[in-house]
Formats: sequence, structure tokens, C-alpha cells
Amino acid sequence: MKDGKKRQAVGIDFGGTFIKMALVSDQGEIKARSKISTRDASGQQAWLEVVARGLENMGAKPKDLAGIGVGVPGFVDYEKGFIYDLTNVPGWTAVNLASLLEKRFDLPARVDNDVNVMALGECAFGVGRAYQHAVFVTLGTGVGGGLLIDGKLYRGAYSMAGEIGHISIKMDGIKSPQGRGGLEQYVGNRRIAERAVQAIQQGRKSLISDLVKGDLSAVTPETISQAAKQGDALAGEVFDFVADCIATAFASVTYVIQPQVFIVGGGVSQSGAVLFDPLRRHLTERLSPYFADRIEIKVAELGNDAGVIGAATLLFEGAGRVV
Amino acid sequence: MKDGKKRQAVGIDFGGTFIKMALVSDQGEIKARSKISTRDASGQQAWLEVVARGLENMGAKPKDLAGIGVGVPGFVDYEKGFIYDLTNVPGWTAVNLASLLEKRFDLPARVDNDVNVMALGECAFGVGRAYQHAVFVTLGTGVGGGLLIDGKLYRGAYSMAGEIGHISIKMDGIKSPQGRGGLEQYVGNRRIAERAVQAIQQGRKSLISDLVKGDLSAVTPETISQAAKQGDALAGEVFDFVADCIATAFASVTYVIQPQVFIVGGGVSQSGAVLFDPLRRHLTERLSPYFADRIEIKVAELGNDAGVIGAATLLFEGAGRVV
Repeated sequence: MKDGKKRQAVGIDFGGTFIKMALVSDQGEIKARSKISTRDASGQQAWLEVVARGLENMGAKPKDLAGIGVGVPGFVDYEKGFIYDLTNVPGWTAVNLASLLEKRFDLPARVDNDVNVMALGECAFGVGRAYQHAVFVTLGTGVGGGLLIDGKLYRGAYSMAGEIGHISIKMDGIKSPQGRGGLEQYVGNRRIAERAVQAIQQGRKSLISDLVKGDLSAVTPETISQAAKQGDALAGEVFDFVADCIATAFASVTYVIQPQVFIVGGGVSQSGAVLFDPLRRHLTERLSPYFADRIEIKVAELGNDAGVIGAATLLFEGAGRVV
Repeated sequence: MKDGKKRQAVGIDFGGTFIKMALVSDQGEIKARSKISTRDASGQQAWLEVVARGLENMGAKPKDLAGIGVGVPGFVDYEKGFIYDLTNVPGWTAVNLASLLEKRFDLPARVDNDVNVMALGECAFGVGRAYQHAVFVTLGTGVGGGLLIDGKLYRGAYSMAGEIGHISIKMDGIKSPQGRGGLEQYVGNRRIAERAVQAIQQGRKSLISDLVKGDLSAVTPETISQAAKQGDALAGEVFDFVADCIATAFASVTYVIQPQVFIVGGGVSQSGAVLFDPLRRHLTERLSPYFADRIEIKVAELGNDAGVIGAATLLFEGAGRVV
């Protein structure tokens, strides 16, 4: 082994629905996978047993491992490996998950926010590998983010930085527990669907109605993006608005930290040109040329694997440019 | 001399009105000063001569100096010491000021944006010296900013980060060459005055009118702050609005980079409680408790000296925590 370093780590993507695990090389390659429903691992002890079985299933031998990394959906103190609270997963308030893992497996363990971990995966082994200063954004039910600064994941003073979804784009806008006018309140999956549905209910004709066979409760951002690709006017307007909201937040981020690139992942990022063309145009309109000329927008590459790869990457300190 | 290091540097605050110079120790003490009107140093050669005379007047001996640092009002590439363009000072487009200074004085020279330099001064020797993660904001004609990350000034990927004044607080707000709804468009000195004046012109009674003896063109943020301190309702409303605009931008910055503290300088920061009480209140309203509980707001300490002290501090690499 090069430099005596352990060249594999286990990455765990601890989601509200699935716990996904992978054995990952320090080149970002997935060597084996394991997956279980989060409902089948209720409580901390059951969760640790799921990890134990996962390690066995994947043929991961502790002596070959640099350690175990976990991305969790909630607030974390990365330095301590401590979970303050998880969104949508009961039983995980004030838990030092890193020390539970270390005791159970006698291996180094690191715990970070799920979106930070995805950002790390994308920046180490995905489309971000060419950049030193990147902002990773995931568009889905909510909007999350992670920051790469000087080639390292930046977590802020208290481990919670990167909450791109809570940037206020309208000071008098929609209220939420996180403040007013947060980006997520306009471009979260449900908000996008609502916007199209409301227009249709108010009498706008749209291909969207046909695509869901009249069942407007079935409208998703994907339906709207399909309609937009076929030239539907309403769908195009909805994506133009979504793109402009995102551009407003991206412009603010660009003025504050001036990254090289925004890397956009999550379901909505699969919409292609119907999202990215107006996003680029609005972002350019919203920046002075000194900033507009220097900022790039890229689509994330690793998809659903960003979480497990990034979680494992937490252990590869010193392996290349990461952590 | 400790470690053979030069323990003094010359800091230059190159403003649109004055060129202020100071001989500064590596403890942030000002040992001597020199000041000249910017109009009397028109063009690069005249400017260099002004610096030469300033050095002489201050008794600064090149052999004792770590170098010369300059803060300039405009866009700069810090790595190269290169000025792209200065706002309000003609004749400084595409100038490598660091190399001009190095050739003329045979001393190391560094050039940075004026607000970055003030941020550095405040963070090294002012109210920011206790913090590793700080955002410095100056409220004046415009709104500028500088970022301290991990104890270092952070300039972004292309040396232009920290433009807090261009954060969009209203996506459909006031247009400017920097985009739409930028903070500066609502809380720049003139905008604050306009807001009060318009209300008075529309018939609102206010102590502000008395303070300027009816001459509404003489209204400044200072007048309004005086009136607010005496309990004037309109003045209080104007400051509440200004505070809420600033809080909106601060909330976004907090969600993105989660600093420990905002350090607020510039003329408007002298307003005291009429600004800072509503600012703190609105910021708390606009953040979830995880963020609100951890963020501080402080008033800058160094006042007009932040510029020269910070500019000199550019040269004290390795002296304590700075640069």
C-alpha cells in the first residue's frame, strides 16, 4: 500500500428512506454496495448492526479500511462527529455517531451533513475535480448546498455553512422556520409543481395536463420539464421563473465568495437546457461583467453515488486534494 | 529585530478624496501619518512622488520597512498587485501598482481592494482580533465588505469576493449595473436620506425637517439618526427598514458561510442603538435558532484608521494570525 495508507473506506449515505453503503477506493471507485430501508434500522443499535452486516456483505475487512464516513440529513458538528438533530429520522437527537462507530468497529469514523458529503464527492471525483473554489447545490424536495474553498470543504464557524436553500431572494417573501423568502420556498419540488398547477387551475392550457392525464396532483418538476422540452409555453415560463430564482441566489453567492463554479445536482438538475439556458442568462443579467465572465455552471456527474463516494472521501485526508 | 523581520510597514489608503499614509508597527500602532488630496496626485508618476514625499515626511527609512501596502477603491487582482479599474479615480485602468511601487522604492508592495484592507485591519488589530471567521461590512455611500475565513482574508477565486453591497434582497428590486435588488440600492447613504425625504414631501411630520431647518437636500443618515435618537417616528421607521434590509443580506451570508461575527463600520455604523437594536432583532427573526444563537454583530473599532492599518498589515505575513 502506497505510503502505508489504507486505500479503501466505507461511505454511508444515511437518508430518510434508504441507508446506502459502498466500499470506495481512494480513487473514488465503488468496489461494492449495500442498501437497506431506513425503516428496517430503527434506533441506534439496530443502525449499527445494519452497518456491521453491510460491511460483511461488501466483504470490507476492517484492517484494509481507512475508516467509515457517514452523510446524514440534518445538523452536525463535523469536528466532534456529533449529530444535533436529523430531519425526518426520529431517534437521532444529540448523538455522537462518530464515537458510536469508532467503538463498535474500532475504525476511524467521520460524520457530516449529507449535502456537504455530496459536495465533497463531486469536488473530489466528479465534475468539480478541476476546481478549487466551488459551490455545490442540490435541487430536490429542498435545496441544499456545500462549499469548496481553497480545495477543501468549508463548513463555516460552527459546521453548518452551505445552506444555499435559505438564501433570501425576497425580503418580504414566503415565511418559513428559516426566515423569509428563502430560495427553497420557490424552487423546492413541490413549489415548482404548485406554480404550474395553479396556473392550469386558473385556466391556462398546457401540455402538462395531458402528460398527467388530467390528474394535477401527479404533476412533478419532471412532468413540467418534459412539457417544456416540447415547447409548452406555461412549462417554459415556470422553468424561467425557477431559473431566475436560482440565478438571484447564485448572484448573491457569487458577489460574496466568488467561486469558480456552481455544480448543480439533484432531480431538477436533470431537466437540461430548459433549466440551464435561462439560468445562465439570468445569472449573467444579475452580475456585473467582472463576475459574470468568471463564473461557470456545471451539472453534477456522480448522481445518486455522490453521497456514498463523498462519505468515504471524508476518510481520505491527504489523498490528493480532498478534505 | 525579532526573527530578523522588519517590524514596520507603510499603509496607504488611496481614496477618491484623500491619499492617507501611515507608518504602522506590526502591533497595529500608527507611528506617523501623512495625507494629501487625491487631486494633487493626478496620474501614476505624480502619485508615486506623493508616496516618496510621504515616506520622507514620516521618517520612514526603507531599510526598516517590511514594505508598502495599498488599499484602492476598485477591482484588483491581489496576487498580481494589479488594478483593473478604480471607481471615481481616472487614470488607473489596467495598472500594476505593486510593480510600480517595487521598482520605485525597492521594497515589497501589495495592493488590495480598500474594503478588504479595512477588514484586515479590523480583524488583525480591531474588534475582529478575537475571531477566525468574520464578515466586515462598511456602510457609507456604498456598501462594501471583506471576509475573514480561518483567520485569513478570503478574496475568492478571482480576488473580488466580499461584495456584500450587491447581495440581492429583492429579486424584482431596483436595477443597477450590478444586477437587481442589491443591498446598496436600499441602504447606501443617499438611499436612506431619500427614503426620509420622500415621506416628508408626502406630508409626514418629522423632527428631521427641523434638524435641517427645512432644507431637505441637507438630510443625511446622520440627521435621521439624530432624530431617531430623540424618538422621531419617521426616523425610527427609516432605520428599522434599513436594519431589516441589512438583516436580510446578513441572514443570507450567515446561511452560506456561517461566520462568527459581522463587524460593521462606515458612517452609518455610528448610529448606535437606533441601527443595531432593530438589526439584531430582524437578523434573529430571519434565521433559524441554530444560526441565530451563534452569530454576533459588532461595531468596528478602528474607524478611519482601518484603511492605513490594514494596508500595512498586508506586509506582516506571519506576524500573528494575519494574511
